[in-house]
Amino acid sequence: MRWLEAGSGAAMPQSRIAVTPTAKIDDTADLSRIYTPGVADDCREVADDPSAARRLTARGNCVAVVSDGSAVLGLGDIGPLAALPVLEGKAALYKRFAGIDAWPLCLQPREVPAMVEAIRAVAPGFGGISLEDVAAPRCFDLEQQLRDSLDVPVFHDDQHGTAVVVLGALINALRVTAKKMDDVRIVISGAGAAGTAIVRLLQNAGAASIAVYDSQGPLHPDRDGLEREKKWLADHTQPGSADSGLSQGLADADVFIGVSAGGLLSGQDVAAMAADAIVFALANPDPEVDPKVARQHAAVVATGRSDEPNQINNVLAFPGIFRGLLDGGARDLSLAAQRAAAQAIADAVPGRDLDPRHIVPDVFDEDLVPAVARAVQEA
Amino acid sequence: MRWLEAGSGAAMPQSRIAVTPTAKIDDTADLSRIYTPGVADDCREVADDPSAARRLTARGNCVAVVSDGSAVLGLGDIGPLAALPVLEGKAALYKRFAGIDAWPLCLQPREVPAMVEAIRAVAPGFGGISLEDVAAPRCFDLEQQLRDSLDVPVFHDDQHGTAVVVLGALINALRVTAKKMDDVRIVISGAGAAGTAIVRLLQNAGAASIAVYDSQGPLHPDRDGLEREKKWLADHTQPGSADSGLSQGLADADVFIGVSAGGLLSGQDVAAMAADAIVFALANPDPEVDPKVARQHAAVVATGRSDEPNQINNVLAFPGIFRGLLDGGARDLSLAAQRAAAQAIADAVPGRDLDPRHIVPDVFDEDLVPAVARAVQEA
Repeated sequence: MRWLEAGSGAAMPQSRIAVTPTAKIDDTADLSRIYTPGVADDCREVADDPSAARRLTARGNCVAVVSDGSAVLGLGDIGPLAALPVLEGKAALYKRFAGIDAWPLCLQPREVPAMVEAIRAVAPGFGGISLEDVAAPRCFDLEQQLRDSLDVPVFHDDQHGTAVVVLGALINALRVTAKKMDDVRIVISGAGAAGTAIVRLLQNAGAASIAVYDSQGPLHPDRDGLEREKKWLADHTQPGSADSGLSQGLADADVFIGVSAGGLLSGQDVAAMAADAIVFALANPDPEVDPKVARQHAAVVATGRSDEPNQINNVLAFPGIFRGLLDGGARDLSLAAQRAAAQAIADAVPGRDLDPRHIVPDVFDEDLVPAVARAVQEA
Repeated sequence: MRWLEAGSGAAMPQSRIAVTPTAKIDDTADLSRIYTPGVADDCREVADDPSAARRLTARGNCVAVVSDGSAVLGLGDIGPLAALPVLEGKAALYKRFAGIDAWPLCLQPREVPAMVEAIRAVAPGFGGISLEDVAAPRCFDLEQQLRDSLDVPVFHDDQHGTAVVVLGALINALRVTAKKMDDVRIVISGAGAAGTAIVRLLQNAGAASIAVYDSQGPLHPDRDGLEREKKWLADHTQPGSADSGLSQGLADADVFIGVSAGGLLSGQDVAAMAADAIVFALANPDPEVDPKVARQHAAVVATGRSDEPNQINNVLAFPGIFRGLLDGGARDLSLAAQRAAAQAIADAVPGRDLDPRHIVPDVFDEDLVPAVARAVQEA
């Protein structure tokens, strides 16, 4: 940039993303092409045939990364502006891993109808909506109402991205422990956006025994005061007794999936699980159980941490998923497409490399995103 | 981009802009820094002190380029999606000339309150709003209500950008013809966004005799059915008789400024102007009068065309204006700042170069944007 070389006098912010022109603008001919009068031809073509926007504008490759800042990382409700660094980081990853142009939208309103209205109002310029860090249960209604009212895909990474990468990792963990999805008893800690989406996807993939706990105990049909989504989980899962704690519930379980809070479990709790137990302790930065301790008792241990083996990281899933949605011109991410994406992630670990400390592919594996994108597009 | 090298199978759209990460993302350490957990520090800092967003996020250097597509170039009301190529081109120019990260927002609603609501809803992520191609008179209310409700600068290029560059060019045209702003009789054709803003700025700069015509004739206090802004113009300008046409009104005028439609005037009309007449025929792509014909009768002729001398192009103004607004942390673009910007544009043509065919600087003059930005920041 000529401007930056010349120096503006003002310090540039430490943003994670920038906008760049896709062609040089160094003479009058460049100007005429990139702006008036050259741009008028494209405007006219899109006015005549809106579908041409996919080919002639950023829209065909562009996603809005949207948050109200109500559930940011482990920081909680810090508001839309303070969520901006996360949204920028996410946009940077969309480009780096999937070539997608993503721009952050920090959303001021907190009521679902106003959120939907705001996103609808600016939707024409975007080929998809990537929801990020919106608190449960608001995120469920928001996603549903957006899907009902927009003609582009809506994807909430904290739900579906997490569910896809968990299923992908679980497929491989079952492979290395020689267990089967429809045989294993699964205990999930956390009944927010991630926990709910994981239950739905695992059940769609054949899981027949899932018990879900939140901070108040098991989601059980007899429990009073459950909000709509949690009530659904209570009615459609296989909880044990209504008054058991998480530790008791874990006895003889094959799989633990934690998407809740750090330090909930001890080594004893893991030791009480079934033989060849699988432990995904995904709370960040502090897992539900110390992974070093868990490995003494479980066959497979995974966390969300980059300094431990088996990092279950959404970046394995969301770039390829949205690449597939955009390339396929899809309006929706079906459970079948989520399952196909998870299988592609699992299959990206070659059989010869598969072992208890290597159930997920490297995020820098160059074949991963194209494989996930293809799976989503075909499903 | 690794992704693009690998090839996605899908054709990338011919967008004018792209999003790029500002740092490499090639290993786990990069990932931890640009996304979780590294990003959490910046989130926490902005949550504690929102003003830190200026330093730590794109917001401090980021502008939304917003249009409802109701008055796009000479194409008219083609809707928000068909306006996207223009918005992308504008964003590309903001970056190329002023280092500003601008992203297009195509706005679906057409009622001002809903437009304001939508922009407010997504405002936290942007350091300013650049309105583009919004039809008059809607653009006046929209701009005013946005100014009243946002804490970042709002700038409508079709009004203020055009007014600034016209004033800058007029300052130099008056220099080369040895005329004075408070002496000359000015006739303006066009009473939309541009015409209205030009009147206000020229009057602020000392112009004492301005008559304005729209397609129905002169804006005169006796004319019935004028909308609010046109009524204001009728009451605050110096029109001739209520039933004169544009050609008659031009007789003995010193300055003609056309921001209307092509081919309105003949060589005879220009010949009837005062000696050393100044003609700015800015309708695009066809000027109000053929510039070659106009030059036979006028001392200075300017158009919006790149293939004629004296191209009056908004790109002379808007990059430097918004750079100055962002660097100065301004909430508003005052008339004084607009005047200062116009003077900076005029002064960017060195005295030794100033002649009737050279009243505006080259848009690729590297000193221009910093000079305009400084003028705005100081005003």
